[in-house]
Amino acid sequence: MIQSYNSQLLDNAVEQLAKLPGIGRKTALRLALHLLRREEEEAVGIGEALIAMRRNVRYCRKCHNISEDDLCEICASSRRDAGLVCVVESVKDVLTIEATREYNGLYHVLGGVISPLDGVSPSDLEIDSLVSRVGSEDIREVILALNPTLEGDTTNFYISRKLEPTGVRLSVLARGISIGNELEFTDELTLGRSIVNRVPFSNTLPPGR
Amino acid sequence: MIQSYNSQLLDNAVEQLAKLPGIGRKTALRLALHLLRREEEEAVGIGEALIAMRRNVRYCRKCHNISEDDLCEICASSRRDAGLVCVVESVKDVLTIEATREYNGLYHVLGGVISPLDGVSPSDLEIDSLVSRVGSEDIREVILALNPTLEGDTTNFYISRKLEPTGVRLSVLARGISIGNELEFTDELTLGRSIVNRVPFSNTLPPGR
Repeated sequence: MIQSYNSQLLDNAVEQLAKLPGIGRKTALRLALHLLRREEEEAVGIGEALIAMRRNVRYCRKCHNISEDDLCEICASSRRDAGLVCVVESVKDVLTIEATREYNGLYHVLGGVISPLDGVSPSDLEIDSLVSRVGSEDIREVILALNPTLEGDTTNFYISRKLEPTGVRLSVLARGISIGNELEFTDELTLGRSIVNRVPFSNTLPPGR
Repeated sequence: MIQSYNSQLLDNAVEQLAKLPGIGRKTALRLALHLLRREEEEAVGIGEALIAMRRNVRYCRKCHNISEDDLCEICASSRRDAGLVCVVESVKDVLTIEATREYNGLYHVLGGVISPLDGVSPSDLEIDSLVSRVGSEDIREVILALNPTLEGDTTNFYISRKLEPTGVRLSVLARGISIGNELEFTDELTLGRSIVNRVPFSNTLPPGR
């Protein structure tokens, strides 16, 4: 039953909030009533921040990380090692790796991993742009930092085949990360160490290949 | 540590969302990144709905329920029984009782219950306005529908003393509601029945008074 709250404006706010993932109508109502009890600036602050973010945040032309300019802060920085590119699944993984403060190279955000079951094929991801980056920029090493899942491993393998002709060195994060865990939930120490102790990609292939 | 997300706009959106009750920075980031992946209309819709709600929703002059006008829809309706006033703690309780479809009178929203520990005294609540309503309007019965907690019972007792001189009939919800439970989490059938089977307030006082 869609309950009506005596006010079209409250109804609408609840309906909009309930569109967010993990927020149902009960929680949405609780949040809306909370905002009604607080200063006007609080609701206006949240509303304006969401609108400004959505309207102005773009994606970096080079690495596809979020950015407010054509190039993101990381790609534009002269203090980062431009010869090192870390391939990650999502923007969130960039934030997670940055928080370790162990990595000083650039990134490449794929926007997902190859997953036939979810209908994600290589052409949906930023793989071609990675290959052309490696071909045109002076990159000496590509670190594959996808989540250690079946889809992540498949994508690692696909990328390694695509990059083979370029002769670039490939490495993956040290498997200090427990299999099946997401990067986001790995503690910063373990994740930082697994970047420092990264191993050549060929070491991770099954023997006999 | 306050993490920075490469974008002042994203930082700000996360910070604003994290002000909401029950939403931490991790959840706020998840929600913000979700909105970045969706159509612009979605973030703008949420933002504008929150701002419009906070700017335009007011409180009913008579019962202090949320309203878009001077009088709320319930107080303004000619189909409601204006001789019956149900006293509730919060706006949410009005919604909960309305959902039972068993009640056809008006409401009076106190805005809380007496709680010395939380620093809520009778003067912080809409109790004086209730007494003057009972004195000036043609009200034959006041139903006390506060949550069956220590604070709710204290407030019931305080109100009953204040209303005693007016001679209005006082009743409380039938104690089908299990003690300690909040109205909001009571199922609609039980709550509806407890309105129909309400009992005179004096019946609920300890014997010997």
